[in-house]
Amino acid sequence: MAEDPTATAPPELSVDVAALTALLDGRYADVRRSVRALLPAYASVLEDAETMPRAEFRERVKDVVLEMAGTGAAAMGFPKEYGGGGDIGASIAAFETLAYGDLSVLVKVGVQFGLFGGAILQLGTQRHHDAYLADVVSGRLLGCFAMTETGHGSNVQALGTVATYDPATGTFVITTPTPEAGKDYIGNAAAHARVAVVFAQLEVAGERHGVHALVVPLRDESGAVLPGVRIEDDGAKMGLNGVDNGRIWFDPAGIVRVPRENLLNRFADVTEDGTYVSDIESPGRRFFTMLGTLVQGRVSVGAAGVSTAKTALTVAVRYGLRRRQFETGAEDGPEGQEQLLLDYGLHQRRLFPRLARTYALHFAQEVLAGELHDVFSGLRTDEETRRLLESRAAGTKALTTWHATDTIQECREACGGAGYLAVNRFAALKADTDVFTTFEGDNHVLLQLVGKGLLTDYASDFSDLDQLGMVRFVAGLAVETVLERTRVHRLLEQLRDVLPGGDDEWHTDSGLRDPNYHLAMYRFREEHLIGGVARRLKRGVDEGMNPGEVFSRVQDHVIAAARAHVERLVLEANVSKVASLPEDAGDLRLTLNLLCDLHALSGIEADRGWFIEHGRLNTQRSKAITREIGDLCRRVRPIARELVDAFAVPEELLRAPALIRGEA
Amino acid sequence: MAEDPTATAPPELSVDVAALTALLDGRYADVRRSVRALLPAYASVLEDAETMPRAEFRERVKDVVLEMAGTGAAAMGFPKEYGGGGDIGASIAAFETLAYGDLSVLVKVGVQFGLFGGAILQLGTQRHHDAYLADVVSGRLLGCFAMTETGHGSNVQALGTVATYDPATGTFVITTPTPEAGKDYIGNAAAHARVAVVFAQLEVAGERHGVHALVVPLRDESGAVLPGVRIEDDGAKMGLNGVDNGRIWFDPAGIVRVPRENLLNRFADVTEDGTYVSDIESPGRRFFTMLGTLVQGRVSVGAAGVSTAKTALTVAVRYGLRRRQFETGAEDGPEGQEQLLLDYGLHQRRLFPRLARTYALHFAQEVLAGELHDVFSGLRTDEETRRLLESRAAGTKALTTWHATDTIQECREACGGAGYLAVNRFAALKADTDVFTTFEGDNHVLLQLVGKGLLTDYASDFSDLDQLGMVRFVAGLAVETVLERTRVHRLLEQLRDVLPGGDDEWHTDSGLRDPNYHLAMYRFREEHLIGGVARRLKRGVDEGMNPGEVFSRVQDHVIAAARAHVERLVLEANVSKVASLPEDAGDLRLTLNLLCDLHALSGIEADRGWFIEHGRLNTQRSKAITREIGDLCRRVRPIARELVDAFAVPEELLRAPALIRGEA
Repeated sequence: MAEDPTATAPPELSVDVAALTALLDGRYADVRRSVRALLPAYASVLEDAETMPRAEFRERVKDVVLEMAGTGAAAMGFPKEYGGGGDIGASIAAFETLAYGDLSVLVKVGVQFGLFGGAILQLGTQRHHDAYLADVVSGRLLGCFAMTETGHGSNVQALGTVATYDPATGTFVITTPTPEAGKDYIGNAAAHARVAVVFAQLEVAGERHGVHALVVPLRDESGAVLPGVRIEDDGAKMGLNGVDNGRIWFDPAGIVRVPRENLLNRFADVTEDGTYVSDIESPGRRFFTMLGTLVQGRVSVGAAGVSTAKTALTVAVRYGLRRRQFETGAEDGPEGQEQLLLDYGLHQRRLFPRLARTYALHFAQEVLAGELHDVFSGLRTDEETRRLLESRAAGTKALTTWHATDTIQECREACGGAGYLAVNRFAALKADTDVFTTFEGDNHVLLQLVGKGLLTDYASDFSDLDQLGMVRFVAGLAVETVLERTRVHRLLEQLRDVLPGGDDEWHTDSGLRDPNYHLAMYRFREEHLIGGVARRLKRGVDEGMNPGEVFSRVQDHVIAAARAHVERLVLEANVSKVASLPEDAGDLRLTLNLLCDLHALSGIEADRGWFIEHGRLNTQRSKAITREIGDLCRRVRPIARELVDAFAVPEELLRAPALIRGEA
Repeated sequence: MAEDPTATAPPELSVDVAALTALLDGRYADVRRSVRALLPAYASVLEDAETMPRAEFRERVKDVVLEMAGTGAAAMGFPKEYGGGGDIGASIAAFETLAYGDLSVLVKVGVQFGLFGGAILQLGTQRHHDAYLADVVSGRLLGCFAMTETGHGSNVQALGTVATYDPATGTFVITTPTPEAGKDYIGNAAAHARVAVVFAQLEVAGERHGVHALVVPLRDESGAVLPGVRIEDDGAKMGLNGVDNGRIWFDPAGIVRVPRENLLNRFADVTEDGTYVSDIESPGRRFFTMLGTLVQGRVSVGAAGVSTAKTALTVAVRYGLRRRQFETGAEDGPEGQEQLLLDYGLHQRRLFPRLARTYALHFAQEVLAGELHDVFSGLRTDEETRRLLESRAAGTKALTTWHATDTIQECREACGGAGYLAVNRFAALKADTDVFTTFEGDNHVLLQLVGKGLLTDYASDFSDLDQLGMVRFVAGLAVETVLERTRVHRLLEQLRDVLPGGDDEWHTDSGLRDPNYHLAMYRFREEHLIGGVARRLKRGVDEGMNPGEVFSRVQDHVIAAARAHVERLVLEANVSKVASLPEDAGDLRLTLNLLCDLHALSGIEADRGWFIEHGRLNTQRSKAITREIGDLCRRVRPIARELVDAFAVPEELLRAPALIRGEA
């Protein structure tokens, strides 16, 4: 490719694919390798998803999940005494790698081991562990996680199912009082689950104590649905049709009863005589503590989002390196030879910033998984760490799953009409991942959660605030107080002098590739947005608007602040990863640096309107960033194949024979 | 809903749904009404798409298409003497309305009547019309449009199939010389087409004359594939699985022959003794003239894009008006009542600018369809009008189909997990429309075409320029010359004084809702981007880069200029529509004005970085625009239901009973 004669071209980078894969694999390289080795045997599931009738495909997926349970790949996070691997971090790494394969299999693994098994592990106590976990881990007992209802998705606290304690019989009566309170979209419910962990409003002696979880049998050994339970199939879905989602109603007449011991009683219990007891006094805090233990689900979905983006990029980049279009005009090419798609500037612009962001999100996800491991392995036990983990998990999940949706779409379009054929992988990727943006919490709601944490500094006293409580709380503080309490405020202080502020500093392109400059920009944005939200909340309340209306008006600002916060965390993870490489890592370090810069600058470019509005970019520098991104893309071009090969998606799972290998 | 106490609230608008529908329906209200009345009978096809095996669903779709052919709804654009309706505009209106129904049916209608029948009508002469059209219109002869090849999609000029004239027998020999030259993704090919219009390199007496179209039989009356023809099924696709796409190869040994008369000879012919004759001397111009007659396909896909966005918005808005989430805190609401989704500011922000843009694109599409009608009905015959039509069709198709993809996705996410169930329409909408962005020309390639037209002022002498020729041509002109030749330059001159340029004019919010301000902004952007492209092309060539490399680097700028151009056309169509309403149209006029402003300002906001960089926005005004958009969204809120009801999507086609009507 001809170089711009006005510039001195830096030497081409040389990428050692194996070394880069090892870096991406990180601490759990063995786990990842073993799952990658396992997956090709199940490549045919990708085809079965297209060809088998739904009922048959569900059975096929169930069988695969059971086989995987046999290999130990699915339950690495459970204690060893129940047959698990005893390593949370390993279980996330395994799940992330499984996401290269069929996603119905992945999600069914997630339902059985993550949601259902995870709820028993985290919300239950020894008696539940002993009763269920070995069978969960082996797959002998299939279950489901019955939280969401037709009328309540993201607002779990308001759900309608009721569990009433009856001291006379020592049982809980489970009822669905209204149609809207029916459990809905519950994976494993329509066909395979024998039991459910049911989330219900706990009522003891006429008093409500908020949402709690109980183990409730759904089917007998033969698979017949038990009396008082009604189950309906959710039917065809956009994707993930190997997972049997369904609706569950418990007869309002009170036919369904479970023993008192079925209450998952780690955080609260009911004594035999009907006294409610809990170490956590505040109902809100109790609820959020319970929910917080389930954070692994969000970390897992986020991991899967990154993996699916990797698969899509692998196909699209390899296609761009095969497919030629229109004449090159290059003097060194054969006469009339068409130009490779990936040599077009626009094609680079479409794919490479997304490739760089995929690397960035990979490293952000690695940090998150590490924190999850530390907290859930008991290596870090303080409340604050736990709350920061929950916030990071929520925010990262939102960013990675939106990134997956966006990247898969762009990659499919970059493969033209061929991208539309099912054999070329995008059909399933698109359809199966689409729900990632809403399950385990709607992305916007998750970012609201992050925003609430930012505004209240994750203070434990406020963990049970609803959005209106949050509005009232923040409105009661001085804006400076809100800001000073934020972490980003302190981080920013260290970097403020890197930010160009006066006209004299703005007229050069220098520092565009300085990570401290990127960090300062991202941190400035975050702090400024938080301050702006606090100011608007305060003003709204001061002017007499009701808190609901204030929140409604400031909501997009809250989301923007939360997003800026998570973007900052992603960038920091990325910059730290580069900094952690030895100086003599040579091209490996230069390559990651290149990707890190491309990601950071693309983020600034995408939001340049905001940065200019807030005095942190001027026109020249903004244009210089756009030029720099073009240059960085041209530097990525010669190593693009190596960068996707390092993801190590097993060749059998890529399918797309015509797209990537030119096979008819 | 409480109003901001600091502002004086304008009175709520009252929308007459029937009057708004009539306005949207426009000139072809009767046609649209009759198709809307026809569609509910076929609502079950939407379910069949999920439940039937692929082969069976294809037959079902074929039967529906044949039934529709019987009603006359599918072939309104064909001359009356062959059973058509004799009205191009009516055929577009009908197609646009059919897009409320199952999209496999729509696309199969498009393949049979638009592509296949259209090619015979537009590229053939009397003898072809007499031989085929009556059977095409009635559906007795099903055919396909065999243009795209495995190796060549958007660059049709380079395709590989060959038609060699053999004067000894007076026949053309059709061959597929390489596997990459196989026809691919051809609708109707895998199962139903008896004949194909095949695009091939015409070779006469050893000389190549470029791409021409011929009628080539594929199957006999019994459906058996003819000797020398090989057909393969493209298999499962992301969507549109009721359409039988396939691949076609013609034996390279030369077994497939068709009579000389099968050449569609409107623009070029071969005499019996083997002389090539054409009134159009330049091969490039001849090719683009042929292709230009097929512009109706792009207009149709664009129309379908708008309709599918309407369906998605109808479901999402109605869901937002049913579903409640979290507490309101409103003093006027019942205690603990949750707030309607659509009362959340963020939800409004997600849906209403897209709703406004859907209206804008509807009116832009109406202008385009009107121009198509005028040109193809012979009301306007000049070359320039034809070229402008082609450019507008290409650009509008790109914008509407991207809008459809984006809007369907946002609406699906706005319906949460429920949006993922097939019964709620989004699964099929997403999967079926996904290919719209690449078929009838990849959107990026189409915008490049638009860009080329802008840069060369649609000069007929340059209509056959490839991208390298375009680079050389533009590089040879002064930038001022390029600019002065553009239409937008002259339009902008009339409005330049509306644009704030100096600091003194910037500090007020005045004029934010002035359409002349919006027009000036959009026109300024277009002109500036075109100038920038011309400058960069020139500089690159002057600095000695080869034209291919120059093009590759400037490509995203060309696309940006083209996009800005089409956005300006959309805005103008929208502003004209409002202006055309009588002053006493009252709330109808105010409503359209509101939507027009929301669309225009959202476009400026989305690109505010660029406007600030180029001195046309300052920080205060940019923030004022963001605030204004929030205000406009709050004004849309009380009439949102009416705005989607006016689209008049038949209730039966919405499905989504639980989402929109609360039915279990």
